[in-house]
Amino acid sequence: MSIRKPYLIFLGDAAEPVLAKTAFGVRDWSQQDCLAQWRLPECKVDLGLPDKEPAAAAEIGARSLLLGIAPGGGRVPPSWVPGLRKAIEAGLDIVSGLHTRLEDVEGLAELAAKHKVQLINVRTPPKDLPIGNGIKRSGKRLLTVGTDCALGKKYTALTITKALQSRGVAATFRATGQTGILIAGSGVPLDCVVADFVSGAIEQLTPAAADDHWDVIEGQGSLFHPGYAGVTLGLVHGAQPDALILCHDPTRKHIAYHPHAAMPSLKLAATRYIEAAQLNNANVRLVGVSLNTSALSQAERERALSQAEHELAVPSFDPLKTSSDSVIQRMLG
Amino acid sequence: MSIRKPYLIFLGDAAEPVLAKTAFGVRDWSQQDCLAQWRLPECKVDLGLPDKEPAAAAEIGARSLLLGIAPGGGRVPPSWVPGLRKAIEAGLDIVSGLHTRLEDVEGLAELAAKHKVQLINVRTPPKDLPIGNGIKRSGKRLLTVGTDCALGKKYTALTITKALQSRGVAATFRATGQTGILIAGSGVPLDCVVADFVSGAIEQLTPAAADDHWDVIEGQGSLFHPGYAGVTLGLVHGAQPDALILCHDPTRKHIAYHPHAAMPSLKLAATRYIEAAQLNNANVRLVGVSLNTSALSQAERERALSQAEHELAVPSFDPLKTSSDSVIQRMLG
Repeated sequence: MSIRKPYLIFLGDAAEPVLAKTAFGVRDWSQQDCLAQWRLPECKVDLGLPDKEPAAAAEIGARSLLLGIAPGGGRVPPSWVPGLRKAIEAGLDIVSGLHTRLEDVEGLAELAAKHKVQLINVRTPPKDLPIGNGIKRSGKRLLTVGTDCALGKKYTALTITKALQSRGVAATFRATGQTGILIAGSGVPLDCVVADFVSGAIEQLTPAAADDHWDVIEGQGSLFHPGYAGVTLGLVHGAQPDALILCHDPTRKHIAYHPHAAMPSLKLAATRYIEAAQLNNANVRLVGVSLNTSALSQAERERALSQAEHELAVPSFDPLKTSSDSVIQRMLG
Repeated sequence: MSIRKPYLIFLGDAAEPVLAKTAFGVRDWSQQDCLAQWRLPECKVDLGLPDKEPAAAAEIGARSLLLGIAPGGGRVPPSWVPGLRKAIEAGLDIVSGLHTRLEDVEGLAELAAKHKVQLINVRTPPKDLPIGNGIKRSGKRLLTVGTDCALGKKYTALTITKALQSRGVAATFRATGQTGILIAGSGVPLDCVVADFVSGAIEQLTPAAADDHWDVIEGQGSLFHPGYAGVTLGLVHGAQPDALILCHDPTRKHIAYHPHAAMPSLKLAATRYIEAAQLNNANVRLVGVSLNTSALSQAERERALSQAEHELAVPSFDPLKTSSDSVIQRMLG
């Protein structure tokens, strides 16, 4: 899957920013790829980008219309269809992270063929994925792992990638979820991969590379999640990481949406991730802790960060609030 | 997926017993469901069942033609098609564990609809699988786990199920692979399930039950396999087992087909499986070790069994060679 950039971001009739999380993520992390936004009259969300219709966006260089919002039910609402057709007629690819495939919207596939543009469904995994083999490969890999889902693994990986690149270290962000794929322009939508192929999909996503190159891999799920731990373990094994960063939200009292499922201690989580990663790389190291401290005061943040450092004896940071320098030093050291 | 029994077993033109592993497995473990076999003239394999053509088999009560052999490439060869049509015309369902869906064989779906019979693809997972939630449920569950793939997890589960039933304990074998599903008549083909739903699929397969009922669940893969460990972890979590039996082949020097991947010690394997299962059931116990000693002499077998008992402090057995009594006692005790 290879997505053509830059984007015109479609915000439809989104009433609230929370429905446009994907759009905000892409704007924040892939700003140079976001030329303009396109909003229907009812839209209440603003990315702060110039407003353009497809033809005007194509004229200034846009290559794809990115569906940046989540409609109810994950399906394309009928009210969007005329707009999608307009984009195709303007020569833009359509890029979607929705559950429905774009080809299932009547007439779209024919129109796309006629105008020689691509319909890209980010949720469709590649065909013919291999089974993981665990054979040692060259290059270095960092994986972000978590005590739970949805607490900063993607943002941590993106932050580390930028920090490495700004130091002149060769580094590539490797996406394993929809928003990550839209930011990177490629990746594997791990939540759609058949279980047997999870490790193999990650091996394919992060192939052998130069010895000093870092793949920075977006983690998924958690070894402590009652439903998703298998996905996470397959990802850990396929990644064959040299370095792990443990991501955590100190305000979370239990696994999200699972009040019966306890949060692990940082110590237990670190131990289990290291044990798991050792299967395919005996030399794996924990190099940092990433805390999501958005709900904390400055004093609480400092306390949480220093407590995590103390507990795990590695540097800590909040990718949105504090510097990653000491984690990067540990990682490269 | 609910399969209608008894079976007429189709052996096609199988030249060697190894191609008919599925057929032998079903005959050995579901003898009462196997009425007859049907062989093309070139067939060199014999299950020891009466030879019948579809019409004759239907007359004595057969409900399904079971494809008991693995053709090269996992596809239905053209030479089988007339036979499959004959079976449908005789009113038999067709049951297949092949990769190709029966509907993809030209003309079969129409013929099946006309004769009101089912085409059952054992490799097609159920739709709308839930995500695992890990909420404690009633009933007891035993799961067979392994140091590697293909060393006796299914046979161990089948043996334990029969032994429990013969003692009057309510017990149900729960299948997670193709052959197991053909034996049980239902189950989940775990190797085709999207990773996010593995735990949920197993929760659905082994629902809450009477407090003294045992679900005996067929394990898959291994936590120590570089490609499949994620599947195994999802299965362990979804099973929420009260009891584990660790399966092992003492002659195996490394993970099969992966010479770079070391076999774990029995002790390490037991520790990791217990740790993993504790996520959803703090009271899980290891109740036995099952050894595949088919390649050993009588003296070597005894030595291997007693060594395993000593190493793990639980009873050991070989489901095809020795009694399961002491394991069952430990399990019920």
